[in-house]
Amino acid sequence: LNEPARAVPEPIARVVAAIEPPDPAWEVRADDRQGRLTMPAGSLGRLLELGRQLAAIQRTDRPFGDPALVAVFAADHGIAESGVSAYPAEVTGQMVANYLRGGAAVNVLARRAGAAVRVADFGVKHWPKGLPRTDPLVSVPVRRGTANFLHGPAMSRAEALQAVQAGLELADSWISTEGFRVVALGEMGIGNTTTAAALIAALTGRPAECVVGRGTGLDDPGLQRKIQMVEAAVRKHAPEPIDDPWDCLARLGGFEILGLAGLALGAAARRAVVVLDGLISSTAGLIAATLAPQIRDYLVAAHLGPEPGHAIVLDTLRLRPLLDLGLRLGEGTGATLALPLIASAADLLRDMATFDSAGISGPCSD
Amino acid sequence: LNEPARAVPEPIARVVAAIEPPDPAWEVRADDRQGRLTMPAGSLGRLLELGRQLAAIQRTDRPFGDPALVAVFAADHGIAESGVSAYPAEVTGQMVANYLRGGAAVNVLARRAGAAVRVADFGVKHWPKGLPRTDPLVSVPVRRGTANFLHGPAMSRAEALQAVQAGLELADSWISTEGFRVVALGEMGIGNTTTAAALIAALTGRPAECVVGRGTGLDDPGLQRKIQMVEAAVRKHAPEPIDDPWDCLARLGGFEILGLAGLALGAAARRAVVVLDGLISSTAGLIAATLAPQIRDYLVAAHLGPEPGHAIVLDTLRLRPLLDLGLRLGEGTGATLALPLIASAADLLRDMATFDSAGISGPCSD
Repeated sequence: LNEPARAVPEPIARVVAAIEPPDPAWEVRADDRQGRLTMPAGSLGRLLELGRQLAAIQRTDRPFGDPALVAVFAADHGIAESGVSAYPAEVTGQMVANYLRGGAAVNVLARRAGAAVRVADFGVKHWPKGLPRTDPLVSVPVRRGTANFLHGPAMSRAEALQAVQAGLELADSWISTEGFRVVALGEMGIGNTTTAAALIAALTGRPAECVVGRGTGLDDPGLQRKIQMVEAAVRKHAPEPIDDPWDCLARLGGFEILGLAGLALGAAARRAVVVLDGLISSTAGLIAATLAPQIRDYLVAAHLGPEPGHAIVLDTLRLRPLLDLGLRLGEGTGATLALPLIASAADLLRDMATFDSAGISGPCSD
Repeated sequence: LNEPARAVPEPIARVVAAIEPPDPAWEVRADDRQGRLTMPAGSLGRLLELGRQLAAIQRTDRPFGDPALVAVFAADHGIAESGVSAYPAEVTGQMVANYLRGGAAVNVLARRAGAAVRVADFGVKHWPKGLPRTDPLVSVPVRRGTANFLHGPAMSRAEALQAVQAGLELADSWISTEGFRVVALGEMGIGNTTTAAALIAALTGRPAECVVGRGTGLDDPGLQRKIQMVEAAVRKHAPEPIDDPWDCLARLGGFEILGLAGLALGAAARRAVVVLDGLISSTAGLIAATLAPQIRDYLVAAHLGPEPGHAIVLDTLRLRPLLDLGLRLGEGTGATLALPLIASAADLLRDMATFDSAGISGPCSD
């Protein structure tokens, strides 16, 4: 960690600079068009807000909410060795195999939503025997999992930059080349709710006990241990997220989370909508907004889960979640469930009749 | 209204008797299967509750959430002549034409959700010139709109029975013959939030000012007038919904609302899931539950809208809405947006891998 502070490598700085604020003129034009569609003004609530957001991002009053991609980035976490999860670390790699076979919840939900799923290994420690590391899997070998941040930095600053950079490059390929317009951020990593909680505590200054939740199902003593570990990690590393965000991200981060932050930045730079899922995915959104505050207008919060840190992140980002269904699985499942809402919002702007075109009387002028 | 009280015609009584309570043994089997799927137990929240409900209704732990139908029933309301809506009564028929051409919000949303839309004329007063009254439109000629319930009963008891009976028969054709497994209740009828409010006040005993809302967009004086009319109507007709529900439904009802109640009853008798939309659609669900309390387990509340009566109906039915997106359009739009959630809940039970089949480690036993 002896790189100079604030040194953001040129490719990342370029992408951050390329994220333009959405165009408010297109918000006005979307509102105008929505006011002429055959429904009482404003009667589709949040869908109309989504339509306006899509219009401003895509600079058209006929936006598209598809094709959509669910990116599932997987990595392991050194903190898992301290016993913060109900599941053994082997499950990260086993679930990668499950995603590649199409048997996980996110695969089933994505088929229903008509979305593609891409899986990337950002540092899985225990690789399942016989599972190829090649296409369709994306392999991003930074390191096979982070170090335990109770004992030292989770990764080096160079590794943090490398993980974000890898996410940026995937955005380039998926959006510029393949044409996805909506990208949902999914993740898998045993122990990663602890990493996310530490990052949230560091980035927002909130105490650990407000941020830490039960993850995949900790009991009360497990929850207390997890709170103490997050508290100890933040105290040990004393991050300065405003002065030196990369130091904070390296000390407390996770490879899949930083990769997703990079993917979000790259997606926004290419005018794609970024859909946040649960705690971890939303933490990636928070990191992206730390590096590029103007990204906020490209983000959609799919849902609110029961992890207390999730609400803190969404509040910090000033995002209102679309769904509240008690989801706490991660892997992009909540974001995938929100995709039809986003696509529907765009469909309405493109495909509904107007009062004029349909010959329908407007409100009585009394 | 000189028919004998409590006389329920045999076809309706037969359908009510045919609605069996869902099988709790299949709830247990669905829970058991969901516990073996590759996710932390319970981590998909409300989707798992939906899966359990579908399993109990369909008597299988491999349920289906499609094919789905959105039924849009349209009719006019005598009360509209008293100026309770921001829109003229001609709009009911104009919107029927819009549904048939595929240009309304419900059409756009149904295409995205992969659902069919069927439109039925249950008594449209102002029929648009040149619009055929034939297939694909379903024509249910009871009467061309209700009478104004401020001056007398909205319809006769015989007409109320006829409207419900027509809904039952459509359920028979759509479910038994065409195989829809999920039916969403949509409606159109200028003035029908006033009819729904009067029915809710009568059926739940709640005062008009707690039930009445702004509909498609009344201003404050309009809202006050609407409250007074609902109050006056309930006082005038003094309905006894427990002793004689048909008298209450005839005095204050609407043809499309009673048709939807019949559709709900017929759907549940054939083990289809019934999805409630907004205020009016949910009032149809309340009517169905008044006639057949066991139907409650077949109902799904798609969303909660801003009309105060909507929350009262859902509370009375003990239903928790899936979505809260500020929707107040009706016509089945909110129910249609919930269809992918219902289909997804079934997909998970059918298509996800289990821990065993995927070779994934379960929770650590510590």
